[in-house]
Amino acid sequence: MSEFEDSALSCNDFLGGQLRLWQPKDGYRAGVDPVLLAASVPARSGQRILELGCGAGQVLLCLGARVPGIDLTGVELQSSYAQLARRNGTENKIVIKVVEGDLAGLPDDLRQRQFDHVLANPPYYARGAHSSSANLGRATALGEQTPLAQWIEVAARRLAPQGFLHMIQRVDRLPEMLMACDSRLGSIEVLPLAARVGRAPELLILRARKSGRAAFRLHAPLILHEGDRHEADGDSYRPCIANILRKGAALDWPRSR
Amino acid sequence: MSEFEDSALSCNDFLGGQLRLWQPKDGYRAGVDPVLLAASVPARSGQRILELGCGAGQVLLCLGARVPGIDLTGVELQSSYAQLARRNGTENKIVIKVVEGDLAGLPDDLRQRQFDHVLANPPYYARGAHSSSANLGRATALGEQTPLAQWIEVAARRLAPQGFLHMIQRVDRLPEMLMACDSRLGSIEVLPLAARVGRAPELLILRARKSGRAAFRLHAPLILHEGDRHEADGDSYRPCIANILRKGAALDWPRSR
Repeated sequence: MSEFEDSALSCNDFLGGQLRLWQPKDGYRAGVDPVLLAASVPARSGQRILELGCGAGQVLLCLGARVPGIDLTGVELQSSYAQLARRNGTENKIVIKVVEGDLAGLPDDLRQRQFDHVLANPPYYARGAHSSSANLGRATALGEQTPLAQWIEVAARRLAPQGFLHMIQRVDRLPEMLMACDSRLGSIEVLPLAARVGRAPELLILRARKSGRAAFRLHAPLILHEGDRHEADGDSYRPCIANILRKGAALDWPRSR
Repeated sequence: MSEFEDSALSCNDFLGGQLRLWQPKDGYRAGVDPVLLAASVPARSGQRILELGCGAGQVLLCLGARVPGIDLTGVELQSSYAQLARRNGTENKIVIKVVEGDLAGLPDDLRQRQFDHVLANPPYYARGAHSSSANLGRATALGEQTPLAQWIEVAARRLAPQGFLHMIQRVDRLPEMLMACDSRLGSIEVLPLAARVGRAPELLILRARKSGRAAFRLHAPLILHEGDRHEADGDSYRPCIANILRKGAALDWPRSR
């Protein structure tokens, strides 16, 4: 599959309509996760950003919508998604460079560059869990082809000194992530994301720094929804989360103790 | 220092007076941490319990006060603390066996035994942070002599198949703990302990199982105090925490998702 047919795509609003992004109707569809990931990155104008596995470009374009004047590069294995990311960049008037390639062997021009921030939203499930999917693109986007340790290794190599990795992932992969960071990245902070107060977090954002030497920190969970349970009306996002999702606000990381 | 002088000791109530334990006035003094650790262990009558670095016996005796008919063994490097633990056992009418020895080379009779539960409350600070202490016993109890990985390795060796390790430790040591568990222990669950809602947890209880194969779980933090800040009157423990500290209740781990 080298390109999506228009009939296979839908166009969806992100950040309260600041972005309108094409996504495959039937493939990987961005939820709140890429928006939260983009919001968590403290990028500044002039900085160089690389996303590993950029899909249709949701994370990069959310970041580009918030921070003007940043240099956005994505690498994407699947040609159809790479083309979609480029189209989404063009139609939203955000400059984005998308390189087709595999993490296991990045193209030469990428291997010669360093970045202030590397971002990744790797597949949440190990290969096999979705391998029966008739939709190969969806299976590739959801099911792991590349070990998580390799994502982190590639990120660490591409980071400039003191550069940051931000990665969103399932909580149950935390041990694997921490082991992969060991000796490559430091100053690790983990922000668990929990649906409601008192619920176990299912996702987390991991922040790590090249050459960082600060102690590991586990933050209080970021709670997404108001109340103890789902109410019938509305989506019940807490105001700080609604600001991120609907107004493109940054996610404020907890301060130092 | 082979034995504490009585004048160097104070006798303190634990579990609402169910236990009265001697502690050195000037040495390591148990706070809520050993009580929470003991409360977190789902031991049943007839099971064999080993505590690594049992100090004056607070954890073992809190567990023994809650669960009748368990077999309690502690290993303690410092002779003066080992003697105090034995005295605390005798005076509180709880049978406890305390072996003097170093984790790096456990006595033979311990190396031939297996345990259903291994517990540990290792020193929170790396060696050096307290090395200037004029009180050598206190320095040994607070400052690390033995790497955390070694505590976990010794625990894993002494656990019976499907046996549990419970360890309380500072959050910033989590990566080290997870790396040490890798390949030795599985089914890891982490329960962060936070002073108040929204505060970053500073301590955690790690539970891991010999031959366990379940996915890693990070629970919602257990919140110790009511309210957003310290109020002048009382200690403001939440009822479930007060039940543990003052009535000797068990700590209920969050259930499966």
